[in-house]
Amino acid sequence: MLSRSPLAPARFADLAPAAGVRFGTAAAGIKYADREDVLLMQFAPRTTVAGVFTRSRCAAAPVDWCRNLIERGQARALLVNAGNANAFTGVHGRKAVRMSARMVADALGCRPSEVFLASTGVIGEPLEAQQFEGCLGDIAGRLVDDRWEAAAAAMMTTDTYPKGATRTVDLDGVPVRLNGIAKGSGMIAPDMATMLAFVFTDAPVAAPLLQRLLKKSTRTSFNAITVDGDTSTSDTLLAFATGQAPGVAPLIEPRDRRVRAFAAALDSLLLDLAHQVVRDGEGARKFVEIEVTGAASARSARTIAMSVANSPLVKTAVAGEDANWGRIVMAVGKAGEPADRDRLAIWFGDVRMAHKGERDPGYDEDAAAAIMRRPEIAVRIDVGVGKGRFTVWTCDLTKDYVAINGDYRS
Amino acid sequence: MLSRSPLAPARFADLAPAAGVRFGTAAAGIKYADREDVLLMQFAPRTTVAGVFTRSRCAAAPVDWCRNLIERGQARALLVNAGNANAFTGVHGRKAVRMSARMVADALGCRPSEVFLASTGVIGEPLEAQQFEGCLGDIAGRLVDDRWEAAAAAMMTTDTYPKGATRTVDLDGVPVRLNGIAKGSGMIAPDMATMLAFVFTDAPVAAPLLQRLLKKSTRTSFNAITVDGDTSTSDTLLAFATGQAPGVAPLIEPRDRRVRAFAAALDSLLLDLAHQVVRDGEGARKFVEIEVTGAASARSARTIAMSVANSPLVKTAVAGEDANWGRIVMAVGKAGEPADRDRLAIWFGDVRMAHKGERDPGYDEDAAAAIMRRPEIAVRIDVGVGKGRFTVWTCDLTKDYVAINGDYRS
Repeated sequence: MLSRSPLAPARFADLAPAAGVRFGTAAAGIKYADREDVLLMQFAPRTTVAGVFTRSRCAAAPVDWCRNLIERGQARALLVNAGNANAFTGVHGRKAVRMSARMVADALGCRPSEVFLASTGVIGEPLEAQQFEGCLGDIAGRLVDDRWEAAAAAMMTTDTYPKGATRTVDLDGVPVRLNGIAKGSGMIAPDMATMLAFVFTDAPVAAPLLQRLLKKSTRTSFNAITVDGDTSTSDTLLAFATGQAPGVAPLIEPRDRRVRAFAAALDSLLLDLAHQVVRDGEGARKFVEIEVTGAASARSARTIAMSVANSPLVKTAVAGEDANWGRIVMAVGKAGEPADRDRLAIWFGDVRMAHKGERDPGYDEDAAAAIMRRPEIAVRIDVGVGKGRFTVWTCDLTKDYVAINGDYRS
Repeated sequence: MLSRSPLAPARFADLAPAAGVRFGTAAAGIKYADREDVLLMQFAPRTTVAGVFTRSRCAAAPVDWCRNLIERGQARALLVNAGNANAFTGVHGRKAVRMSARMVADALGCRPSEVFLASTGVIGEPLEAQQFEGCLGDIAGRLVDDRWEAAAAAMMTTDTYPKGATRTVDLDGVPVRLNGIAKGSGMIAPDMATMLAFVFTDAPVAAPLLQRLLKKSTRTSFNAITVDGDTSTSDTLLAFATGQAPGVAPLIEPRDRRVRAFAAALDSLLLDLAHQVVRDGEGARKFVEIEVTGAASARSARTIAMSVANSPLVKTAVAGEDANWGRIVMAVGKAGEPADRDRLAIWFGDVRMAHKGERDPGYDEDAAAAIMRRPEIAVRIDVGVGKGRFTVWTCDLTKDYVAINGDYRS
């Protein structure tokens, strides 16, 4: 059993019910003994859905399933399991997905095409859909709307704490709610970094608009984090909008001026969840923000920031509390993006370490050392060629990462 | 002091003199106490030179120096130091380079523009060229042609053993020699992966031909290895041809049928050195060959192979002796190259783990476990879309890598 990350939030956020969302959890014994590993969620009729998925060329069977359904924009249920990713399971995996959707549809009285599925865990082991059979009817008989921490906990694999966040927005004088839960710890890198994250709102949002907002928001949240640069076959982010908030006119057009408030809340919610995933990075002891400025474009800034964030040498230096800005130079250099070596500047916190392509003459080793001892470290890099900027978040690379991943499967 | 890698060759290769190459080493105290850290080499008049360098956008000052000189194709000397990379040192670094070249030229009686330079070690610390002053004249007075192990040892940083290799080829009935030395252990990834490697031959090879052969050979040797995916600011591979082998007509034209034999020896020599670098990967306990077949092109195969070789999750699984082929699927998927999930096949050694997009029904867990316990592991991946193939070499990611890099600078 892994001990709770030192970077974890003090406690699970206080999530109130979101009208039209009910759920339950159970222990199906897919991989773990003595814990819940299945989450079943039910949504009110006319719930809309949007999704963003892994760009892996070897996506898991549930990802294929959701991707095929997402354009319909309608959802009545979500089934999530931990312990087996149902990835790289061939024909068997596709059968398991179809069978799972049918069983959920039977238990909740909806169509299989309204059932979304997500699985996380080991790759390559056949998932036996029959394992859900015993518990789905049972869960369906005791759905609740307020046990969000249990819902998030049922999705955990190497996570050391359940992840949740909530926001409210005023639409037409009515407070609408956005709740989110996520899981993720290793195999975290953009294209989607999520592993699994789900957002639930009682706001009425048309599916195309919800899709547009979700995609945009992902760019600066889940696609701006990395733990180990490895991209999961199962990354899935789904947003469900039940429309059950009373008296709110539907959000349909991007130009609707209420959209801005909703989008800001969604951005903030996803960023919160994404940060929680990084804070639970396998073996992490440091939470690191990397901001690149002065790049040729935002895209170029992102590439440079990710090169730094994924560099094992940078990450081990942070683990060792070593203000080794030379490795930042290396990582900027290897990114292959425009950067002016002789105008490069690097800060750790508010201490400028490098300036105009050299060690900063005024740089204070003690001040830098003090910053490196903090659990949260901000690195800023100005590459001196333009106005592009982007910020990403990562964690350090510790011996515990190696230990956790050296014997995860066995 | 790091203990010798368990993957190290039994002993340093037996390098005989290469006519026209003399050298010496000394302790300049640049960073290390009680060891030699400077290597000075002298070449006969009319020695030709070719080079391949890091593609880092933040290349070190000596790299800039060599890149500017390489097109002239003429070399009389090489100065290498360990402990300070003279990288990201701005104007100061450029001055140090010019001053070093002048001091070498004075000591050996040649022009500064015939002096090649390479530095390895910490980034961002100013290098004081004066530190060489005391020892260059001293070394120049006692040059030898047979202490190759000492030459290789003087370049070491986190290396746990000196690296050398030798080949001979028959040209016009005369045996010509190719000797190589290299250093490298961390910050090893393609574009050049070398850190530093030098080849010396007494064959007469025109500089343009030597450049062409060196570049081609690098593709499948130093650019086909990775330790940590981090690219150095200092990677430098230089080849020097003295032409002192008696009675051999110059190699000038690529079509000269003697070129094939010379090129084959060069390929073999560089691959030997590249493998030695991987075997000394920081903290490495396993030497891993990753062969990708069935790709859309050789380039695509290389991208996929490097995605697998650089995956922290694959590398930690190898460290844990876990035949976790699911992580191979993940790394193939994240590479973004054409691959047919449902035709993918994966072998560890001769055990086929996955076949047609599923776990191989005949797969034997015990046989796979036995392969993972070996110090050398071959992984083959067929991605099922074409005829492209490429092979790369890497090592595992262990707690020792984290330990070595968590406090390298301090």
